[in-house]
Amino acid sequence: MTFAGKRVLITGGLGFIGANLAQRLVELGAEVMAVDSLIPQYGGNLFNIAPIQDRIRVNISDVRDEYSMAYIVQGQHYLFNLAGQTSHLDSMTDPYTDLDINCRAQLSILEACRKHNPDIKIVFASTRQIYGKPEYLPVDERHQLRPVDVNGINKMAGEWYHILYNDVYGLRATSLRLTNTYGPRMRIKDARQTFLGIWIRRLIEGEPIEVFGDGEQLRDFNYVDDVVDALLLAAERDTANGCVFNLGANDWRSLKSLAALLVELNGSGEYRIVPFPEDRKAIDIGDYYSDFSRIRQTLGWSPKVPLEDGLRRTLAYYHQYWRHYV
Amino acid sequence: MTFAGKRVLITGGLGFIGANLAQRLVELGAEVMAVDSLIPQYGGNLFNIAPIQDRIRVNISDVRDEYSMAYIVQGQHYLFNLAGQTSHLDSMTDPYTDLDINCRAQLSILEACRKHNPDIKIVFASTRQIYGKPEYLPVDERHQLRPVDVNGINKMAGEWYHILYNDVYGLRATSLRLTNTYGPRMRIKDARQTFLGIWIRRLIEGEPIEVFGDGEQLRDFNYVDDVVDALLLAAERDTANGCVFNLGANDWRSLKSLAALLVELNGSGEYRIVPFPEDRKAIDIGDYYSDFSRIRQTLGWSPKVPLEDGLRRTLAYYHQYWRHYV
Repeated sequence: MTFAGKRVLITGGLGFIGANLAQRLVELGAEVMAVDSLIPQYGGNLFNIAPIQDRIRVNISDVRDEYSMAYIVQGQHYLFNLAGQTSHLDSMTDPYTDLDINCRAQLSILEACRKHNPDIKIVFASTRQIYGKPEYLPVDERHQLRPVDVNGINKMAGEWYHILYNDVYGLRATSLRLTNTYGPRMRIKDARQTFLGIWIRRLIEGEPIEVFGDGEQLRDFNYVDDVVDALLLAAERDTANGCVFNLGANDWRSLKSLAALLVELNGSGEYRIVPFPEDRKAIDIGDYYSDFSRIRQTLGWSPKVPLEDGLRRTLAYYHQYWRHYV
Repeated sequence: MTFAGKRVLITGGLGFIGANLAQRLVELGAEVMAVDSLIPQYGGNLFNIAPIQDRIRVNISDVRDEYSMAYIVQGQHYLFNLAGQTSHLDSMTDPYTDLDINCRAQLSILEACRKHNPDIKIVFASTRQIYGKPEYLPVDERHQLRPVDVNGINKMAGEWYHILYNDVYGLRATSLRLTNTYGPRMRIKDARQTFLGIWIRRLIEGEPIEVFGDGEQLRDFNYVDDVVDALLLAAERDTANGCVFNLGANDWRSLKSLAALLVELNGSGEYRIVPFPEDRKAIDIGDYYSDFSRIRQTLGWSPKVPLEDGLRRTLAYYHQYWRHYV
């Protein structure tokens, strides 16, 4: 009901989470505009919105383009601010691009909203990466922020700009700190968006999955539909304004056991334990899983899709549509 | 001994803390290069280095100029990275400039060191502003970072870049989170660097000091010589590498009582309690004073100059040199 007839802007709207969100919003009757730069190294892919292409508006532009942003935010009721540079490795080799997208562009989007559309509600996609190596598990929102790569630092700043503009200017904003999200429409060309992408690609192409280190690193995983639920809840509830929330899962598992599960669900394939590449080891965070009780208590969110179901659906999607993603 | 004959680069070297540090380093026998942009709204002032002008090198350039930085860092043993945009209000009206100086330029300085001078030791001047409104007092380094203005967010990112480059690339770096620093050579034209500057100017010019709010806000204060001690200790001790340290004082006081003390030490003048201007109120942090036991225990630093002595010396300085600062 909340979103029927409402104008909704999604930055990164042709990307993994953005396109899944767009589809849901269209089903809910919203007027969706998806903004995306379609930079080849990032997550945007026009195929992601193929099922709804006649029911949304697409605007190809870059969030770093402050003039197009200043125009596009006008008249929107909601902004799901999902565009970002997501590769940890790329942020180390090219820190300026990460800065421009994850910091500067965020400032200019917020400035545009403040000046041209102060009634908009904004939901920002942050990341558990900002915590760095956990000091304790599960990690709650009071855990120290000690990012271990440039991407984590810039996302931390980008998140705080949102909270600041909420607190100082009354621009309503909420930040969700996403953990590993997976599902249909994720980038599988490489590991720039999520390591699960390249794992699935290799599985489908008959190559062994490569698990770095000893494979014992613990992680939690959210199926993208659950993340879409959280985004929508954060948008519609004013109790979320000015808040940061962890997402997370009810269980967690080692990367090795995840790889084994994927092979099992796929019915074929194999995984290999390989040494950590130097550059990845330097920014690895070790074990991570989150405490998401704050969002459960405040907004009533909890993930619904069991890992096996989600992986099964994901594998089915990429077996069918693989050629659109590689 | 540590600094004799050593090449030392100070960004913001014509500014308040930078020039005091330069003077001390010259006395210790270092070869000092002061880099400063001399932007009129910032703290740089050639008069600050008048006593040592024949004994240091001055290079006028902006830390945002990555080419000059890439050249200048070469061959230096130490970098005191003090250049920054310090005005909280300016960071709200012009967030991009604050971002370019306090984030992007920091990245480019660190990249320059990584590529051209990985053996350099860097000490970064951070700020207690990154904590935001304290949740408890005194504030130690484990306090949450929740900055209340754009400047605080960007300084937080700037600090973490330093720690990151220490942790990932082995570039030795330490960050000091300064509290209110005062003393000779601070900017007194306005409140852009410290409110104490404009207070002292008004006192000397026979205008009433304006204390915002109810005047009961608590603050701690460091005389600049004590801060210089801390910077030098952080530079010479490798136990400081990768660490962040609060500076702080053994006592704290309300702004009202500080104003009264200044009037008393000055022998004339008055102060007035005036309502908080809206724009300042929105980013005020309330009471703040820090727990500096980490640096006391790790590096043996504690402040030595009592507030009354420091203020007396400061007043004497500005009575004598007022015309060079307004």
